[in-house]
Amino acid sequence: MKAEELMSTDFLYANTNDSIEEISIRMEESKRFNMPVLNEDMSLIGWVTSLNVTKGLRENKKLISEVMNSFDEVVSVYADDSARLAILNLSGSKVFTLPVLNRENHVVGIIRSCTILEQLSEMYEKSVFDIYNEISQNLDITFDDLIDASTAMYRKDVGKEIKPEEYLKKIKTTTFGEAIWATGGLEGFFVGMIGIGEIAIAKKLLF
Amino acid sequence: MKAEELMSTDFLYANTNDSIEEISIRMEESKRFNMPVLNEDMSLIGWVTSLNVTKGLRENKKLISEVMNSFDEVVSVYADDSARLAILNLSGSKVFTLPVLNRENHVVGIIRSCTILEQLSEMYEKSVFDIYNEISQNLDITFDDLIDASTAMYRKDVGKEIKPEEYLKKIKTTTFGEAIWATGGLEGFFVGMIGIGEIAIAKKLLF
Repeated sequence: MKAEELMSTDFLYANTNDSIEEISIRMEESKRFNMPVLNEDMSLIGWVTSLNVTKGLRENKKLISEVMNSFDEVVSVYADDSARLAILNLSGSKVFTLPVLNRENHVVGIIRSCTILEQLSEMYEKSVFDIYNEISQNLDITFDDLIDASTAMYRKDVGKEIKPEEYLKKIKTTTFGEAIWATGGLEGFFVGMIGIGEIAIAKKLLF
Repeated sequence: MKAEELMSTDFLYANTNDSIEEISIRMEESKRFNMPVLNEDMSLIGWVTSLNVTKGLRENKKLISEVMNSFDEVVSVYADDSARLAILNLSGSKVFTLPVLNRENHVVGIIRSCTILEQLSEMYEKSVFDIYNEISQNLDITFDDLIDASTAMYRKDVGKEIKPEEYLKKIKTTTFGEAIWATGGLEGFFVGMIGIGEIAIAKKLLF
């Protein structure tokens, strides 16, 4: 997955000779806390945040060029960089937004941390029931056998009996994120999943 | 997991009768774009962002009370709410920061989207090699058998032969996040994992 797949091409930008007052109004109206500063051919030359703007207003500065952060201080990614690098840059540098450049250093989009947060948390929101369905469709196991194997795994792990219909009810109301916490982490969840596969296949081979 | 486990107790706040100028300086120095507005007993009464501040400076307002967002407009969570609710609130409302309240409506901390982003992306950064190690330690499968089962699964899925040492090299340089993309999504990864478990146990039972 490439960085460009995470970016929005709908973004605001400033020019060096925009007035600070004008940009402050544009930021307030659009509820954006920062924007790239570009020259005429969309090359990145700097970055301006609402904190540069408050300082400029307080100190009676006039132009964006007087308050912006220079190119060297801007964290950016190339459109064909990996999505992973974009996420690492975002979480590492504690910025909310990354400009995305093509190889000519023109800004072609913006990656926002709220978009990434939505995408990452989407996976945690996936229902375990849906995951089970997908698994039984893709492997040679019926849904019922999968549930039976899961109750056996549950009995082994938790040391308590659970009826298949109770287990079904459990996974219908559980998200992947909750299951990870319940099994003590990602590896725990995988160990459980592989264990279920083992029990299901053992049953098939032995009976 | 509770919301409070994600929060930082080290945060800045404003009072209604702080001057806008003073708060703008505090925000710039700390590089914070927003803070809760509290009264003397730390109860939440509003929220101020750097955009409220730019507007106030431009319009020559003096006090935070003149520009802040009121309590009704603030998205918050209780300390004993689920961490999941905090993440949903953060990604749903496109804010960067959530105040965390105790049941007396006192602010006890702040949850920042960059912290969440770091935590969520950590899981994606986990090495597949580490996951395999954990699995072989927790299930009755040796690491070598797990690799052998994986190459069999690879042959079945991809239709190409792969040597165990090549497979080992592959997982040493692959993160969980990359593996999810490579297998076409979370379910694909699980299907692969369960398939590996099936092959491993079948081998054990049959030979």
